[in-house]
Amino acid sequence: MSSKVRIGLFGFGCVGRGLYDILSRNNTEFHVEKVCVRQRYKHRGPDSNLFTYDPKEILDDPNIDIVVELIDDHEAAYSLATEALQRGKAVVSANKRMLAGNLDTLLGLQKDRSPSLLYEAACCASIPIIRTLENYYPSGAVHGIEGIVNGTTNYILTRMFHDGLSFGEALSLAQQNGFAESDPSMDIEAFDAKFKLCLLATHAFGVVLPVDKVFNYGISTIAKEDIAYARSHGSTIKLIARSAREDGQLSAAVLPAFIPLDHPLSSVGNEYNGVLVHTPYSDAQFFHGRGAGGHPTASAVLADISAAASHYRYNYDKTQSDTKPAFTNDIAVDVYCRYGDTDIARELSLDSIDRRYSSKTHNYITGRVQLEALLQSKSVRNTDVFVGVLPVVSQS
Amino acid sequence: MSSKVRIGLFGFGCVGRGLYDILSRNNTEFHVEKVCVRQRYKHRGPDSNLFTYDPKEILDDPNIDIVVELIDDHEAAYSLATEALQRGKAVVSANKRMLAGNLDTLLGLQKDRSPSLLYEAACCASIPIIRTLENYYPSGAVHGIEGIVNGTTNYILTRMFHDGLSFGEALSLAQQNGFAESDPSMDIEAFDAKFKLCLLATHAFGVVLPVDKVFNYGISTIAKEDIAYARSHGSTIKLIARSAREDGQLSAAVLPAFIPLDHPLSSVGNEYNGVLVHTPYSDAQFFHGRGAGGHPTASAVLADISAAASHYRYNYDKTQSDTKPAFTNDIAVDVYCRYGDTDIARELSLDSIDRRYSSKTHNYITGRVQLEALLQSKSVRNTDVFVGVLPVVSQS
Repeated sequence: MSSKVRIGLFGFGCVGRGLYDILSRNNTEFHVEKVCVRQRYKHRGPDSNLFTYDPKEILDDPNIDIVVELIDDHEAAYSLATEALQRGKAVVSANKRMLAGNLDTLLGLQKDRSPSLLYEAACCASIPIIRTLENYYPSGAVHGIEGIVNGTTNYILTRMFHDGLSFGEALSLAQQNGFAESDPSMDIEAFDAKFKLCLLATHAFGVVLPVDKVFNYGISTIAKEDIAYARSHGSTIKLIARSAREDGQLSAAVLPAFIPLDHPLSSVGNEYNGVLVHTPYSDAQFFHGRGAGGHPTASAVLADISAAASHYRYNYDKTQSDTKPAFTNDIAVDVYCRYGDTDIARELSLDSIDRRYSSKTHNYITGRVQLEALLQSKSVRNTDVFVGVLPVVSQS
Repeated sequence: MSSKVRIGLFGFGCVGRGLYDILSRNNTEFHVEKVCVRQRYKHRGPDSNLFTYDPKEILDDPNIDIVVELIDDHEAAYSLATEALQRGKAVVSANKRMLAGNLDTLLGLQKDRSPSLLYEAACCASIPIIRTLENYYPSGAVHGIEGIVNGTTNYILTRMFHDGLSFGEALSLAQQNGFAESDPSMDIEAFDAKFKLCLLATHAFGVVLPVDKVFNYGISTIAKEDIAYARSHGSTIKLIARSAREDGQLSAAVLPAFIPLDHPLSSVGNEYNGVLVHTPYSDAQFFHGRGAGGHPTASAVLADISAAASHYRYNYDKTQSDTKPAFTNDIAVDVYCRYGDTDIARELSLDSIDRRYSSKTHNYITGRVQLEALLQSKSVRNTDVFVGVLPVVSQS
């Protein structure tokens, strides 16, 4: 690539503006040649000649080396990314939904000497976790990953625990402070976290997870009784994305979990993210940093732009390993289920029940259930039900 | 490299055994061909044919692809590493003293297409911090690094704060538990931490630090009065290696520091290590993991072996940057100096004094001093003096 690396940017929201801002303030080797936006007449700030609403102005421009895709629409993002790659342009993306939903195809597009597709910003913003899993940990070296990978829900849970807010109050506060979107369902129902977990699992274990079969359960039904239960057990509640290999099999799910207060993930507050990488010979390595926000996410985009300019690409070596594990939902987890009218013990197929509690205000059971049973259950989605994973005593 | 990658190992202490153990338990692509040790007749455990006391049996063997150097003697380690590199063998080392003391020469040896020299295990054992600084953060992206990079001193300080032990008692306990060597001076006087800081600074900022001009001050004179002072100010004391760029200049030093209890580094306990990477647009990223021990360090060695087998090498791109900062000791730090008979206010050239305290048991001053003044001062090394850095309010 010639003296200045030329960038075509799709999207000028929070992250796009952040990136433009960082690049404008620093004299870097990168130049934003064109920005493609959807709304033609919206006031944009920088020189209006910079903007176009025609994707071809970027995709067809042979002078543009790197396409940075920061739009919300995952289907449009997929078209742009694949077209750009096919035209020999490197692509940097932060769209976890687009990436997780199309990993198999995107891996197929990345043959030897093809341009880079990089997406560190799609996962935990400022934390360089994808690069580290991809490059540092050899195949077979990671036994498990677990993390707080969604800033919105972590902000909500932090405010509920610290300030005694209800879920609804905490969600409103998150929206006021820019930590939740007007339609927050992808975040609070743990889809966003699931997409990120899929990306992490590919780089940690070499497995492309079937997104629809990975169980995700959010925090929209959490109530003060659940928080009281956590407190009385020396725990907090966090939305945890977890994937672990055991005996050649790989489990993966996103659920609220009761996290003991001495566990590293309990200290990850507000919109921060944190990831633990469990390894057999050195316990766990913990990575912590800002998980959301224009500038932190744009910093990750910039790191990827810089890497793409040096022709760095993910090798996906672990996907070629003979010993990579096979995805399964046939794995048991210990859960707490709080419920009202739904007779959860009857409706959910549990392996065993340890404790039953009932009172005038609420009921709960604790017991063991297969991930597959949770995935198949409709009743766990009832608004009077909240499910949380109980701590595994042996896990650090 | 052919089917099995052949390794020649120098040293069979804690880390060497750990590596052999990990490789024996897992069917990897790596085979330990020969182990060179100093003491000929010591019982070694594995097949005695594996062992040699003649370095040539490894260096002259054309079948050996990678030399892993895990010996204590830094001068011998340097000879082995340079000879191996010159013979086209990749080298993996954990010897921070050898590396930090010879970085300029070692960088010179690493021309294009030369074999790799990798040393993740030399810094923070299980935490992949060198690789991350080298590859993830572009030139200019890091404003500062600060970390707890020495497990021995962190174990001692943790036991002093948690169990009320004196320095001597905590040191004995560390020695009993294998966290301190029989001659602990390199650790407790902060030389080990300084060597690691030099490696970190090269990969974070592209600067090869002049080891002898980097101020290191350990914890051997810490007393209960200092711990009481920390407690009364809502802080703990940690041995902090810190390097920061400002206005084109780079400062670096290792000193005990008062760390507020809400600071991420305050939670790094016992033999663990933790590093904060400060970046302008996304605050700080925090990396935490086991900083010592045979298996954790050997895991890092194995990650490097794996990377060397894929011909990964550090590019040291930042050392080529036009905007890399220049090392300086002309920078002021706010310190606490506790003293007995030494008239520290007279002997140490301070820029200013904020507070003076004296009593029958001890005295202290707080004030501002240049790093250069600390480096030149003999009296700060007196046994009745303890210096600690006070928190910078603006730093997170």
